Amino acid sequence: MYHKKIMHLLLPGFLLGISGHAISQPPRGLLVVSPQVNAGKTVTFRYLAPWAKEVKLNAQFEKGPVQMVKDTAGIWSVTTGPVTPDIYPYSFQVDGITVMDPANVAFFPNERFKASLVDIPGDTPLVHSLQDVPHGAINYEYYPSLAGTTGTVVIYTPPGYDKEVAKQYPVFYLISGTTDTEETWFKVGKTNFILDNLIAAGKAKPMIIVMPYGNIEARIAEQHNGIKPGDPTSREGADALIRAKNFGNDLVKKVIPYVEANYRVIPDRNSRAVGGFSRGGGQTLRTAFENMDKFAWVCCYSAYLSTQEMERSYQPVYTNPDNTNKLFKLLWISVGTEDFLYKPTIEFMDFLKAKKVNYTSLITDGGHTWMNTKKYLAATAQLLFQ
Amino acid sequence: MYHKKIMHLLLPGFLLGISGHAISQPPRGLLVVSPQVNAGKTVTFRYLAPWAKEVKLNAQFEKGPVQMVKDTAGIWSVTTGPVTPDIYPYSFQVDGITVMDPANVAFFPNERFKASLVDIPGDTPLVHSLQDVPHGAINYEYYPSLAGTTGTVVIYTPPGYDKEVAKQYPVFYLISGTTDTEETWFKVGKTNFILDNLIAAGKAKPMIIVMPYGNIEARIAEQHNGIKPGDPTSREGADALIRAKNFGNDLVKKVIPYVEANYRVIPDRNSRAVGGFSRGGGQTLRTAFENMDKFAWVCCYSAYLSTQEMERSYQPVYTNPDNTNKLFKLLWISVGTEDFLYKPTIEFMDFLKAKKVNYTSLITDGGHTWMNTKKYLAATAQLLFQ
Repeated sequence: MYHKKIMHLLLPGFLLGISGHAISQPPRGLLVVSPQVNAGKTVTFRYLAPWAKEVKLNAQFEKGPVQMVKDTAGIWSVTTGPVTPDIYPYSFQVDGITVMDPANVAFFPNERFKASLVDIPGDTPLVHSLQDVPHGAINYEYYPSLAGTTGTVVIYTPPGYDKEVAKQYPVFYLISGTTDTEETWFKVGKTNFILDNLIAAGKAKPMIIVMPYGNIEARIAEQHNGIKPGDPTSREGADALIRAKNFGNDLVKKVIPYVEANYRVIPDRNSRAVGGFSRGGGQTLRTAFENMDKFAWVCCYSAYLSTQEMERSYQPVYTNPDNTNKLFKLLWISVGTEDFLYKPTIEFMDFLKAKKVNYTSLITDGGHTWMNTKKYLAATAQLLFQ
Repeated sequence: MYHKKIMHLLLPGFLLGISGHAISQPPRGLLVVSPQVNAGKTVTFRYLAPWAKEVKLNAQFEKGPVQMVKDTAGIWSVTTGPVTPDIYPYSFQVDGITVMDPANVAFFPNERFKASLVDIPGDTPLVHSLQDVPHGAINYEYYPSLAGTTGTVVIYTPPGYDKEVAKQYPVFYLISGTTDTEETWFKVGKTNFILDNLIAAGKAKPMIIVMPYGNIEARIAEQHNGIKPGDPTSREGADALIRAKNFGNDLVKKVIPYVEANYRVIPDRNSRAVGGFSRGGGQTLRTAFENMDKFAWVCCYSAYLSTQEMERSYQPVYTNPDNTNKLFKLLWISVGTEDFLYKPTIEFMDFLKAKKVNYTSLITDGGHTWMNTKKYLAATAQLLFQ
């Protein structure tokens, strides 16, 4: 019989007697259920804060903050709706402080704000819902990025990818927006469920989707122990353009070669798409226009390039429209009527139209939201590589 | 030239004129940098709250809450330390309200509390740090679970897995604790970085690590639109045991077959390990003891089974110690001296010792924390399958 003590694995902390703050039994307290989707599609939100003076709900299906009411146990709640089925970001405003819903696992990955996600199912399953269909996988990969850093990229592989060891797939490089991370398309955009469902319905081609992180400078700062940069002074200022260029370099020189070396993707421009939301849409256009040999399918969600930038940087794209129209199998632009970028996006479409550059457009209601972004992914996934 | 409007893709919301709350340009406000690790390993935390009366830092390297001080811009800050290098959960207490750090991408996935993570690097790289070594991947997979639900499991594949198409690997089923999710081992435990580093150093065998979600009942409630259960009445009450049984059934009857069908794992008990932290440690012991034919390597971190439960349910394990000692290549138990479970874990070790059941133990300082959990993974990963 032996009872082996791993003396040699005793760690420095033990020897030095450093005692970190010991965690006593974590207080669990009242179990608060939130959010709670009710029959009839109202939603009840609850937040435990016995000493707060005022708690409000901020939700993207409401026009403004909604007052919550405290019960005798100190739980604030409100039931609101009916709410149109979708997945929405929300948070609580507690005596002026914005908090995520502690009772909700589903969060919005983001560099700045912190929000939770509420999922209101449809009477018939929505395209982004978890359904009983074959599922692909989501893979977090680490690749050598610019400036000696290690990048993280999130990659969707379709159902059957691991089994079909001889099969190659088309690939969609899909970029999120300002303050979003490489996880946002997965966690908020539900990329994998949308593709699982469309593929199962025969509406989308099995494809690989590569979701990089858009903020190269933040990653470099973090890994070189520097200060993360603030926002660029404007969407088209010099610093914004430099950052877009950094992003494009990372995508074309680092991400694509890594993906092509490690995933069975068809390494051909006709099987390569690029798309993105918001800043990701701007990065999409700039990267595609600067690399006309790389991407035959271009999807711009809730974004645009100004006439000034087109004239300064992308004359080849519109001075030979016949060539451009041959090169792009899809140039897609979509936006919501309430998006703060609606007007310049329409102007961008008008510019292309005047120059006889073909594009496909979709105007929806709603604003600069991930509700619209999911719709745009679902729409374009049915067009790509077809 | 054409300008194609996707009229048939106009979505119901547009036709019905439902306007969700339009998002104007999101207010970015001041860029707050937090956390900031300084030379000398002090850490500066900042939180923007111009109207708050009091903001404190809660961090697992502090004995208690630490007052922060507001500047003229309304940013509260404190510089604390030096802090022993590691990754620590923390949050801010803002006028009594617990919030995550909005400026920090790194969060602690959890069903209940919401916390951020601060990473203080070592002078020499710590075993859990991102280093310049070959990296494995993290894969989110969806598998058919109990009660007609779809489960999510997070799977680490070691460097080279995709290329070595003929190679089979040993597998470690690794379980997190109460309120943790299937992501916690990845995001907080840094499973992938720990294994990347140990494998690169030749200290761990290339292995697959499967990280399931421990709260089967919550998943069933969520997918069947029911109410999530609260905590069991005690760690060993009837409801806790039922839940452990559900977990064991999901692991053995659903997760393992899915993994064996979809990953190149060696389907042999000598190449199959199970381990876990806290509730996951209890689940580990119960699942291993109830399935002696399944796992030759058993790792229990910061957990135990009571003498009463051993006597009631696991007599075969200790009434024939020679057999048990042949079956288990490793029975590992580790705990911190400040862990609230320290005493019953020592009693569990003493029980095994008295019954002549072999085990390997590691006592560290510190408490029931993920700092200790990371140490335990790093220690056991070097023993598994050797």
